[in-house]
Amino acid sequence: MKILSKAVLPIGFKAEGISCGIKRSGKKDLALIYSDSVATAVGVFTTNKIKAAPVIITAQHIKNGRAQAIIANSGNANCMTKAKGLNDAKAMASSVAKVLNIKTSDVLVASTGIIGKPMPIDKIKTGISYLTKKINKNGLNNVAAAIMTTDTAPKKVSVKVAVGGKSLTITGIAKGAGMIAPNMATMLSFIVTDAAIPSQALKKLLKESVDNSFNSITIDACMSTNDMVLVLANGKARNMKLDGADLKEFSQALSYVFLELAKKIVKDAEGATKFVQINVSGAKNDKIAKTLAFAVANSNLLKTAIYGENRNLGRIFAALGQTGINIIEDKIKVNCSSLKKKNIKIDINLGMGKSEATVYTSDLSEEYVRINARYN
Amino acid sequence: MKILSKAVLPIGFKAEGISCGIKRSGKKDLALIYSDSVATAVGVFTTNKIKAAPVIITAQHIKNGRAQAIIANSGNANCMTKAKGLNDAKAMASSVAKVLNIKTSDVLVASTGIIGKPMPIDKIKTGISYLTKKINKNGLNNVAAAIMTTDTAPKKVSVKVAVGGKSLTITGIAKGAGMIAPNMATMLSFIVTDAAIPSQALKKLLKESVDNSFNSITIDACMSTNDMVLVLANGKARNMKLDGADLKEFSQALSYVFLELAKKIVKDAEGATKFVQINVSGAKNDKIAKTLAFAVANSNLLKTAIYGENRNLGRIFAALGQTGINIIEDKIKVNCSSLKKKNIKIDINLGMGKSEATVYTSDLSEEYVRINARYN
Repeated sequence: MKILSKAVLPIGFKAEGISCGIKRSGKKDLALIYSDSVATAVGVFTTNKIKAAPVIITAQHIKNGRAQAIIANSGNANCMTKAKGLNDAKAMASSVAKVLNIKTSDVLVASTGIIGKPMPIDKIKTGISYLTKKINKNGLNNVAAAIMTTDTAPKKVSVKVAVGGKSLTITGIAKGAGMIAPNMATMLSFIVTDAAIPSQALKKLLKESVDNSFNSITIDACMSTNDMVLVLANGKARNMKLDGADLKEFSQALSYVFLELAKKIVKDAEGATKFVQINVSGAKNDKIAKTLAFAVANSNLLKTAIYGENRNLGRIFAALGQTGINIIEDKIKVNCSSLKKKNIKIDINLGMGKSEATVYTSDLSEEYVRINARYN
Repeated sequence: MKILSKAVLPIGFKAEGISCGIKRSGKKDLALIYSDSVATAVGVFTTNKIKAAPVIITAQHIKNGRAQAIIANSGNANCMTKAKGLNDAKAMASSVAKVLNIKTSDVLVASTGIIGKPMPIDKIKTGISYLTKKINKNGLNNVAAAIMTTDTAPKKVSVKVAVGGKSLTITGIAKGAGMIAPNMATMLSFIVTDAAIPSQALKKLLKESVDNSFNSITIDACMSTNDMVLVLANGKARNMKLDGADLKEFSQALSYVFLELAKKIVKDAEGATKFVQINVSGAKNDKIAKTLAFAVANSNLLKTAIYGENRNLGRIFAALGQTGINIIEDKIKVNCSSLKKKNIKIDINLGMGKSEATVYTSDLSEEYVRINARYN
């Protein structure tokens, strides 16, 4: 696997991001990713019972395992917007389909931003007709910018992997940076590849990769209504069937892209000054390890202590004990790297088994409060 | 029931609070409550798996349903302090018992403060020998002050209720103000009464009162290792057996004291600028109502929005949906009072049943972050 210094679109993909006027700031807010041919497509979605309209529509459109375009906007989540919201999400898909002469059901829709406001659908439609003409092979940066909300930087990762007799490209983008909690992805991420891979195999890889990346991060324990991770594989690299060592290498490359994007989200967490990796080992099983790692990662008291560079191991123990999971104080070993550094590693060995889990989180700063006190 | 404007000790109780040098600030940090005769005693304790030494010792001492004194300190939680911690907690009880000539098992011990530091037991012992001489009928204010940590004000409530042929006094004190989450009390509270009531009956009342008061508040979703609520009823009012309407009235008075103390804790939450009452109604059952009310109350995003006086109902819906409990967006009615005011009421009707629950919380401010970033 080769990590590219600049993110690029794989063969057969075009993209662009523009400002269509959803954001009052005038920043980019509408993006389109397009594949020259229909791609294998899989996705995972928020498990929040309150689902935004684009989540509902895209889940329907992706069911058949294929898609050809992703239309995404920031600045408005199109959530709690009732029948108009569903119609608007459908209209976004059909507007793209019409201009590009593809099926509406092959267009996936994603939105992020404020909840509960009607979509300015006319602006978006005008934006789509412009965008469909502008898509190009170098448009990825603008897409990554156009899906940002409180993110301070676009998040992109590109790798190349030589498998199936070809060099395949896997490229992903993502946005954070608040309302980040596990159990599905709690953000938007789109991964595109020119690999040829059946949707069932891709679905399996997606599930594995998400569990160890986007489902292993938390910023504020708040789960979004709009999360989705979409993977499009258009087969343009014309590789042979991926199996054995090739499949493994492809899988590792895909996981790398997922994990790097997940880490980028945590590093750009709202108000964050620290990137914190929490490893719980010595657990009886994986579920316990992950539950405890998240309990520590979600402790406001620990996060504020880390922000204050204030070594307070008691807060780790209090968080572990709060879960109700059986732990034995005297068996627990905690190792915590210097809090003065930006990257912090907390190793917790429970001394009760062989399972482990790693989660990633940020500190909790005054700036997080300021950002979310005034976000509107 | 008559609410007293000044909190007083019931008949037969003496108390005092002093500074013995645990807190570097020189503020009061050691308190003793004493009953002239052995009292009926019941308690509830943190469900955190990491339990402070005094929690372990006091749970043992109170098992027989009787006690005569409570020795409590702030400034040090005596938690994660291993064998020395247990010995120190025992020593606090035995020191009190020795001077007052009562049984060690009739002395209850409570500690609050920093986790993981050894207790300055010599200072405490010296303090106890002084304190046991100083206890008096007017010492309640000093006790309430001596159990404070980040609290900005002492928390006291006194009521009188005429039942069982006598006027009974119920007086409670409590401390907050961080690490406050449900499932047991997440703070210290001591309630004393001169009522005569068997321990089984008192235990039942305690359970009911706690569920609707201390177990219905959350500040930061962080459960303490040191929580306990202790009730001592010494029977000095010489009332008749409490049953029927009398028991009901006593129970209501006790519940009032609990709820007022719980509210005082939330009002004095670390960094809080708002007191928020969240009522979830129209739920299928009580458990669902309470789970959803807590999900809303614990949302960092909602709490920061309230701090910013920023109306953002989407964050309420996102928090409700995150629980995985089945809710129907179109049936939910949310009514939220003005965010400009200090006291805020959020009514959420799920439209799915007849059960309801009320929980109390605060907003999340920059000051909460500052307090907990530097707490040590």
